[in-house]
Amino acid sequence: MKAKVTVTLKAGVLDPQGEAVRRSLGALGFEGVEAVRQGKVIELDLTETDPAAAEKNVRKMCEKLLANTVIENYSIEIV
Amino acid sequence: MKAKVTVTLKAGVLDPQGEAVRRSLGALGFEGVEAVRQGKVIELDLTETDPAAAEKNVRKMCEKLLANTVIENYSIEIV
Repeated sequence: MKAKVTVTLKAGVLDPQGEAVRRSLGALGFEGVEAVRQGKVIELDLTETDPAAAEKNVRKMCEKLLANTVIENYSIEIV
Repeated sequence: MKAKVTVTLKAGVLDPQGEAVRRSLGALGFEGVEAVRQGKVIELDLTETDPAAAEKNVRKMCEKLLANTVIENYSIEIV
């Protein structure tokens, strides 16, 4: 069973990496890009076969390691 | 109009960051995690209102800046 975790910065948290991408796109001539936010995606291969148990376990991983819940949101997708 | 770009390493390309996450999860007592791959997600706010034109433009951004197509795959989602 696979799980896909998407971790993004909360609204209002400064995102220098996204801002750098926005500027670079402008410098390359791409117009009409108002804002860029960059986050990360983590794909996990799990031996667990029960989707509910897998999601519960991945949620714990997010709280403990994968996301910094002070400044980041996360979403979990079980595939 | 918003676009979400997901950039992941191609199969076979070493992913030390994902491997570090896998080991850390093991050290924290999480069992049953066979493999971890880490990628990035880039959210763009665009002034473009036509979905087809937006996707075409974002594809160019991916080829030029957002992804290193030698070692990375990308997927585009227009929201």
